[in-house]
Amino acid sequence: MSQSLTIDPVRRQQVATALRAALPERCVLSDPEDTRPYECDGLAAYRQLPMVVTLPDTEQQVLAILNICRDLKVPIVPRGAGTGLSGGALPLHDGVVISTARLNKIVRVDQYARTAVVQPGVRNLAISEAAAPHGLYYAPDPSSQIACTIGGNVAENSGGVHCLKYGLTVHNVLRVRVATIDGEIIELGGEALDAPGLDLLAVFIGSEGMLGIVTEVTVKLVPKPQSARVIMASFDDVVTGGNAVASVIAAGIIPAGLEMMDRTSSRMVEPFVKAGYDIDAAAILLCEADGTQLEVDEEIERMTAVLQAAGASAIQVSQTEAERMKFWSGRKNAFPAAGRISPDYYCMDGTIPRKKLAQVLTGIELMEAEYGLRCANVFHAGDGNLHPLILFDANQPGEFDRAEAFGAAILALCVEVGGTITGEHGVGKEKINSMCVQFTRPELDMFFAVKRSFDVPFLLNPDKAIPTLNRCAEFGKMRVSGGVLPFADLPRF
Amino acid sequence: MSQSLTIDPVRRQQVATALRAALPERCVLSDPEDTRPYECDGLAAYRQLPMVVTLPDTEQQVLAILNICRDLKVPIVPRGAGTGLSGGALPLHDGVVISTARLNKIVRVDQYARTAVVQPGVRNLAISEAAAPHGLYYAPDPSSQIACTIGGNVAENSGGVHCLKYGLTVHNVLRVRVATIDGEIIELGGEALDAPGLDLLAVFIGSEGMLGIVTEVTVKLVPKPQSARVIMASFDDVVTGGNAVASVIAAGIIPAGLEMMDRTSSRMVEPFVKAGYDIDAAAILLCEADGTQLEVDEEIERMTAVLQAAGASAIQVSQTEAERMKFWSGRKNAFPAAGRISPDYYCMDGTIPRKKLAQVLTGIELMEAEYGLRCANVFHAGDGNLHPLILFDANQPGEFDRAEAFGAAILALCVEVGGTITGEHGVGKEKINSMCVQFTRPELDMFFAVKRSFDVPFLLNPDKAIPTLNRCAEFGKMRVSGGVLPFADLPRF
Repeated sequence: MSQSLTIDPVRRQQVATALRAALPERCVLSDPEDTRPYECDGLAAYRQLPMVVTLPDTEQQVLAILNICRDLKVPIVPRGAGTGLSGGALPLHDGVVISTARLNKIVRVDQYARTAVVQPGVRNLAISEAAAPHGLYYAPDPSSQIACTIGGNVAENSGGVHCLKYGLTVHNVLRVRVATIDGEIIELGGEALDAPGLDLLAVFIGSEGMLGIVTEVTVKLVPKPQSARVIMASFDDVVTGGNAVASVIAAGIIPAGLEMMDRTSSRMVEPFVKAGYDIDAAAILLCEADGTQLEVDEEIERMTAVLQAAGASAIQVSQTEAERMKFWSGRKNAFPAAGRISPDYYCMDGTIPRKKLAQVLTGIELMEAEYGLRCANVFHAGDGNLHPLILFDANQPGEFDRAEAFGAAILALCVEVGGTITGEHGVGKEKINSMCVQFTRPELDMFFAVKRSFDVPFLLNPDKAIPTLNRCAEFGKMRVSGGVLPFADLPRF
Repeated sequence: MSQSLTIDPVRRQQVATALRAALPERCVLSDPEDTRPYECDGLAAYRQLPMVVTLPDTEQQVLAILNICRDLKVPIVPRGAGTGLSGGALPLHDGVVISTARLNKIVRVDQYARTAVVQPGVRNLAISEAAAPHGLYYAPDPSSQIACTIGGNVAENSGGVHCLKYGLTVHNVLRVRVATIDGEIIELGGEALDAPGLDLLAVFIGSEGMLGIVTEVTVKLVPKPQSARVIMASFDDVVTGGNAVASVIAAGIIPAGLEMMDRTSSRMVEPFVKAGYDIDAAAILLCEADGTQLEVDEEIERMTAVLQAAGASAIQVSQTEAERMKFWSGRKNAFPAAGRISPDYYCMDGTIPRKKLAQVLTGIELMEAEYGLRCANVFHAGDGNLHPLILFDANQPGEFDRAEAFGAAILALCVEVGGTITGEHGVGKEKINSMCVQFTRPELDMFFAVKRSFDVPFLLNPDKAIPTLNRCAEFGKMRVSGGVLPFADLPRF
């Protein structure tokens, strides 16, 4: 948890005055009463009141804010809907927040090119709603899709339940317009398959607000599948369940969704959603097929055979659309359900090679005893993207610290088996120390060099996503001397 | 066409001696008799004898070469199999070529993780051959796949006939190990779905040797489809054919291949391959379906219906594997066939939004009259990736220059309709002026800044892929004053 820092009122006055000279009154907030709603994002354990919040209406206003901040050397934190889970939009006490809330227009939907051009503050689900009359939708579907914005999705390279088949944000965005810290507009990517020059679109997507402010996004739309059905398979132990995931993929099937819940999770959600989950099973897999009726029937048949051969103890297939939604309801409500059974929970986001699923799930089980905390596992199994929910009570002394250490240990295990410390939630403020575990010193140097090539004055969301070498050195010392965090190896950096 | 420059023998002696002190004798070539085979790549109109050629056996030797070149300030040109079509591997008279020919080991094939780890000099097809016993293959299949190497594929972000469904190199490579100009090894990407930090893997793929030397590549393998069939559809005019492509995609079908040939192309290849092509049709489409037997049958049926509705004048479907290969044989032999009917040809590589296909094909037809040269169109229609083959005779005065101007005009038209100047062949030396048409000054600045963050001394394949602003200014002046190149708009930079 970070300490909240005090804002210098003289500096705030100076910056707010400069901004108000360039923007309409309603676009600049500096009174703490007004800026309070911006003090955290979805990682509410970290809070900091921002110095000033701006809400530009136009790209020209975004450029004006960037020019003023550059001239006054004020750091900038961009913010979408604030649903991020890694503190990427955590404000700075001496910084300006640029909220994209008012940049919320759908510029156009092109049903023939199957693209939509939208401003960054448009909500993820609103794009699909605008495309629906043409039988199209925008595929990436993070759990927060009702609220989260496409600008935030670009910043975090968001995924969702269907990204195994349909890809992450980076696979579904064709072009972004970006306002740079130099006050220029650049366009990255394009509607054609591949662009010459360096692929800066891919660098930009997932860059967590460190490289520029998105002012417009062109996304791919895909046709709505004619039909979809889901299999719910039970397993007597998590190892068999984990291996079944690898078997489905090894059989050459790319399900539209392939999700896993352990017993802690299904027992957590079943009383809440009554989805008919097998609460005696050690693990449940949800495997969805979508496409034409014929394709779906054939894929369901093949997946059923693979799951049976992999040792499923029971298998149910949705027969109606209502039943399909019921099967999914537990998965989709796992996070709220965690809130019902535990005062607090901490959602992790490690990603591992699929074949290591069983090993990591077993490792997490052992850690539950070690840290004296329960962990519910509910995750994108097909992608190897884990979302362990560590359950704790912040009012019990020491539990928050134990939860943080447990989380860091899970991430270290992910790296150890060849995975990464984040799948789709980003590094933000939360996982910046874990980056020292994941990357070597020359790799971190390269990240900084690339950031600097977009942001020479180093003002865009500084101190997030990439740790300084000092920070890694500190963290390394702590790990080696304190021995609190059980990392298997010496620091890589 | 570029002028060949003379090598300074004293400098050559100095550099070769330093390299021979660090590498085995067989790994350093400096005699023009030995270095002659390296004077060009697949774009043979551009030739330059390199100062020295190196053929490292190991990653350690690559690092040694980089350290020596950095210390002596010698520019470096990396080279795979030399099959590239844009002069990306064109040597420098004062530079060292690093050939990856000896780095040709398949490190391992993991059938469960469905990955292969290979050295950069391994041939594209050799990866699929090594994976075949496990029923797997490496999907991207450039025409040169028998000869071209994975290192070259990474440099150019190569595609192929099947990349519409299976993606480009960037979608099929999980990780690269890179030797940097600083003499460090870094790893970009990883086996997990998404990596934290900036997506430098995507920047590296397609960076045309400007950012570092690949020493190892981890690729995705995919299961071989159980079956495949192809439709051959005829159209009475190219506009109807172009619109049919858009209709197939708009119907939500992603064919395994979707290729188009115009009449010039089919008449060029038919006498040569006897594929049974409809040489009276203005355009032929080849649409492939792959997957399980059932999936293939259903997709063939749906595609047939769409093509009929789109105005196909005749439709044939392959009934056997032999017939499928016969239908493809003409497409695959289009380039050699061009060599039979014309002394020279110039293969372009523009990419456009699919819905603009008809417009651009019509535009190219008008240009044929304007430049007095024939152009055969054979291309990846599903991707909107055009490969116009401009037919000319270099022995006829002025024809080469007209062919170059015709090519540049095609690329300018691609940019004008929202496309790009290259799909899969790269910018290299060939299309560096066209980059000035495609990008604005701040965008080119950003490319240079990112290159510089990988390559501070600016020694890795300099003067390729990204034009200097001086070069664009010169080019702009030429266009505006000479009026030779018919670009629609004023320069963007």
